[in-house]
Amino acid sequence: MNQRRRHDTDGSAYWGGEASFMDDITLVGAGTACGEYLRRYWHPIGLARDAGDRPRKVRALGEDLILFRDGAGRPGLLHARCAHRGTTLYYGRVEPEGIRCCYHGWLFDREGRCLDQPCEPDHGAKHRHGVRQPWYPVEERYGLIFAYMGPPERQPLLPRYDILENLGDGESIEADDSSIGSGGPVIVPCNWMQHYENVMDPFHVPILHGSFSGAQFVAAMGRMPEVTFAETDRGVRSLQVRPLDGGRRLDRITEVVLPTLRVVPDPRLDHHGPASSIGWVLPIDDTSFRIYTAGRVREPGELSRQRSRFGGKMWFELTQEEHQRMPGDFEAQVGQGAITLHSEEHLTSTDRGVATLRRLMKRQVAAVADGADPLGARRNGADPLVRLDAGNYIAS
Amino acid sequence: MNQRRRHDTDGSAYWGGEASFMDDITLVGAGTACGEYLRRYWHPIGLARDAGDRPRKVRALGEDLILFRDGAGRPGLLHARCAHRGTTLYYGRVEPEGIRCCYHGWLFDREGRCLDQPCEPDHGAKHRHGVRQPWYPVEERYGLIFAYMGPPERQPLLPRYDILENLGDGESIEADDSSIGSGGPVIVPCNWMQHYENVMDPFHVPILHGSFSGAQFVAAMGRMPEVTFAETDRGVRSLQVRPLDGGRRLDRITEVVLPTLRVVPDPRLDHHGPASSIGWVLPIDDTSFRIYTAGRVREPGELSRQRSRFGGKMWFELTQEEHQRMPGDFEAQVGQGAITLHSEEHLTSTDRGVATLRRLMKRQVAAVADGADPLGARRNGADPLVRLDAGNYIAS
Amino acid sequence: MNQRRRHDTDGSAYWGGEASFMDDITLVGAGTACGEYLRRYWHPIGLARDAGDRPRKVRALGEDLILFRDGAGRPGLLHARCAHRGTTLYYGRVEPEGIRCCYHGWLFDREGRCLDQPCEPDHGAKHRHGVRQPWYPVEERYGLIFAYMGPPERQPLLPRYDILENLGDGESIEADDSSIGSGGPVIVPCNWMQHYENVMDPFHVPILHGSFSGAQFVAAMGRMPEVTFAETDRGVRSLQVRPLDGGRRLDRITEVVLPTLRVVPDPRLDHHGPASSIGWVLPIDDTSFRIYTAGRVREPGELSRQRSRFGGKMWFELTQEEHQRMPGDFEAQVGQGAITLHSEEHLTSTDRGVATLRRLMKRQVAAVADGADPLGARRNGADPLVRLDAGNYIAS
Repeated sequence: MNQRRRHDTDGSAYWGGEASFMDDITLVGAGTACGEYLRRYWHPIGLARDAGDRPRKVRALGEDLILFRDGAGRPGLLHARCAHRGTTLYYGRVEPEGIRCCYHGWLFDREGRCLDQPCEPDHGAKHRHGVRQPWYPVEERYGLIFAYMGPPERQPLLPRYDILENLGDGESIEADDSSIGSGGPVIVPCNWMQHYENVMDPFHVPILHGSFSGAQFVAAMGRMPEVTFAETDRGVRSLQVRPLDGGRRLDRITEVVLPTLRVVPDPRLDHHGPASSIGWVLPIDDTSFRIYTAGRVREPGELSRQRSRFGGKMWFELTQEEHQRMPGDFEAQVGQGAITLHSEEHLTSTDRGVATLRRLMKRQVAAVADGADPLGARRNGADPLVRLDAGNYIAS
Repeated sequence: MNQRRRHDTDGSAYWGGEASFMDDITLVGAGTACGEYLRRYWHPIGLARDAGDRPRKVRALGEDLILFRDGAGRPGLLHARCAHRGTTLYYGRVEPEGIRCCYHGWLFDREGRCLDQPCEPDHGAKHRHGVRQPWYPVEERYGLIFAYMGPPERQPLLPRYDILENLGDGESIEADDSSIGSGGPVIVPCNWMQHYENVMDPFHVPILHGSFSGAQFVAAMGRMPEVTFAETDRGVRSLQVRPLDGGRRLDRITEVVLPTLRVVPDPRLDHHGPASSIGWVLPIDDTSFRIYTAGRVREPGELSRQRSRFGGKMWFELTQEEHQRMPGDFEAQVGQGAITLHSEEHLTSTDRGVATLRRLMKRQVAAVADGADPLGARRNGADPLVRLDAGNYIAS
Repeated sequence: MNQRRRHDTDGSAYWGGEASFMDDITLVGAGTACGEYLRRYWHPIGLARDAGDRPRKVRALGEDLILFRDGAGRPGLLHARCAHRGTTLYYGRVEPEGIRCCYHGWLFDREGRCLDQPCEPDHGAKHRHGVRQPWYPVEERYGLIFAYMGPPERQPLLPRYDILENLGDGESIEADDSSIGSGGPVIVPCNWMQHYENVMDPFHVPILHGSFSGAQFVAAMGRMPEVTFAETDRGVRSLQVRPLDGGRRLDRITEVVLPTLRVVPDPRLDHHGPASSIGWVLPIDDTSFRIYTAGRVREPGELSRQRSRFGGKMWFELTQEEHQRMPGDFEAQVGQGAITLHSEEHLTSTDRGVATLRRLMKRQVAAVADGADPLGARRNGADPLVRLDAGNYIAS
């Protein structure tokens, strides 16, 4: 192999070296540093209605799981491979007490206890208690099913958020699983962090969503804002100040709540005041993700009407040439590759939100590896709501 | 990487470790222990009519081969890559004396001898004898073409089986290549052993083929049998005793004959007495297999009518939801993954047929690695037929 | 694992060993010996009209690039990943001065200089000069765009060839990107060298293109020629002598000009005299290639009418059985596998053209690794044209 050294006298593409990515803020599998960090939090893995009497495949953090709901109405989330001989429980039958494998009929409850082994003497009464189907605890909230996939003794409370509580008259919480905010299809084929750090990158808005594609949102969002970033006790926040007509001013606050929450106020500015929805980025595996959203609405279907349009078309209606002419978040983020190559980046002053988020995430990942609890993990039921700052505010 | 240790106090799926499979009873490639063991036997690689004047691709034990029939009516099986410059003989031309490569016209007979090199001086008369296209011996029997892919000096006789010999009036042998018994399509995308060991698992029948999917066969088969397993001089046998109406008793014997034969009597119980067909599981490679079958029939097409139906439909007609509601062998076995993870299993008393087969196979694989001949390998032409026990017998 | 030794007493396919390929004349990636050698030459990477105001994906030598043309009409070729945060410039916008990334609007000229960073203070005036988008020099000639992907200080002149210069009245140069000569589709899924060495293999012509498929070209080409090979100062040449009717003789000269040029006179013999076109084999990556062609024509479209026909049909119109009955270069070369296994070959006297080319290529690859310039690399602008010998000549 020939020797190559990078030297940038003329910028030739010839002088490329080995490119690499930061694995400690990207990889999600069990046993990886970032994967273990992510496993210290609750993640949404389905809509409440996804848990029913037909077993449903779930893939989260690189693990294959089966979601169902038992006869008492309680959702269950089990490893897909049956503990007996490994057949997937996707072909199992949901029964009042749990789910029964199709192959030899072992019946498991929602916590993996084996309740029946019909081929065994006395239905396995003697030995079945020694078997446990691997399971994860789940809870329902805001129309979503949340799972905790980490070490049981570290299980935190499932948080509540102020903007989704204390509903007013005529308000309700709506849940959505269509990856609102991805700018593309439900399952996005790139690493989750490429999307997540984008939330702390307000500078791309006037370019990608403004001058580039025409005003994808509204005219005011096309103006370059003054931006201040700050770490919070739960993540990172950005304050974007834009002048409005008539001498007024728009103060827009966007925030990320670790490890995967995006709190983005209405980018069309129809609503002022606090943000009304939260999106959770679910890493499916290292190279794909989806977004679950819960929001305060006045009418059913209000959330899903927020999906992006490009020249009046939905993303899947665009031709290849239209994708090139009117790119959005999907094109920009998937266009970075399956996992972007951080070694090739040139960060500048306007990337300081991204840099702040990455640094915080790295410290958190390291802290968990050292045995500490991560930011925001609460175990005390008397803890108050998580209070969020995100919103669009008019100042004069 | 964080430390994780398995501890089963609460069964959490979090405590998963590294999962693994038994490579000595699964992998089929040349040079693997199991692959070398399998190469000590004859395997069917096509129907007799597959060998003709159009070269046919065959993939067996991970090797790419070409099947054809020369002008004297003799089938030939050669490595697909031409010994000259590696072009596949799939584009070759079958001639009276053998097959000719399309690229430079080298002609090989069915034993790989090079008979012509038309571009060379004097058609290669001086040097062509130094070249041999890699070949395998083949024999035709029961409407199938069998190949021996092992070391030549260890080549055993191609066995005859009593249930396929001494035909009665109006009987004939029919061959089938549609993977009867797979419960699905012709090529099944998982390791062959997942199917093969299923033959020594009679307990799944009343569950998977009975209570789960409605009676896929007949009502009597839905009853849980009394089962006895025994090693034989050729494999493993199971005797399943089920009560019948009127005080009678069904004694059903199923057997596997190593390394890949499945002898399963009619599961619809239309026929009593000895089994009338044999299925050979052909490992295509590590993660796919197919089944060739030969059976004694009274009418043409009788064999293929045995293919499974689910609620009256063929497998490929089912919707995804119907596959979930009426799973069969295909769903159960492919649902174990490309190669099942034996380390994650919990075998019980009703898996003792599977365990017996695995142990026998492991001993045989080890014996061959130590230089011994495996079970059932015969070289003496005077040897009697292989006598099989499989059948449905009524006792009163 | 069992021990296996090759011994050819009976030619059994059982005695296969580990097969391998020659990496020094096949692999094209940056840092490989062959890849570095190839990077010392200019390669066509598109038609002139491919460079326009819509960014176009180019893949060459395993690298992903973007081709465009700036407002001054100059083509540019940049690494696809934006130097800022890695988004592909495929979604960029072509502007008068260069191409602008969709994500944060960085603008690069055709030599990678960063001209604008609209989100940065003062449009990045202070820091943008420290960033350079990786770029390659390109030149247009013969209707093609050529790129030099090697070390800048070793950049040779883009050569001119006598047969494409000094056009006569009514003649013009036509360019084609449809892989004329591949015998199949535009992108061929095998290593480029399998095609390239075929050019120095005139013996396959009477077989593959003659007796095998009927006369794919003309009857005279179906006769086995007398062949002489010779190294030239630029590659390898073959002289093929065939008798013609009436006591005349056809002297046909075919040549390869390193590293990827094929100069093949009209195989239908409609034209006598010097060859009228050159084909450049572009390795897309290790396992696929395409061919760009430039030729002297009298009518537009003349070049593309040279594409092969099989029994009157285009390649993509053939059934699978017709591909088997009438194989051509595509079937023969792709049929050698993604990268052919040289260790399994048996070369003979009629492979001496292939062997000569391989040896020359290996010496050249080694010379470049040792710091020398390769064959044909010129830096002196006063150098004469490259004079080619290829042609069909009638002698009496």
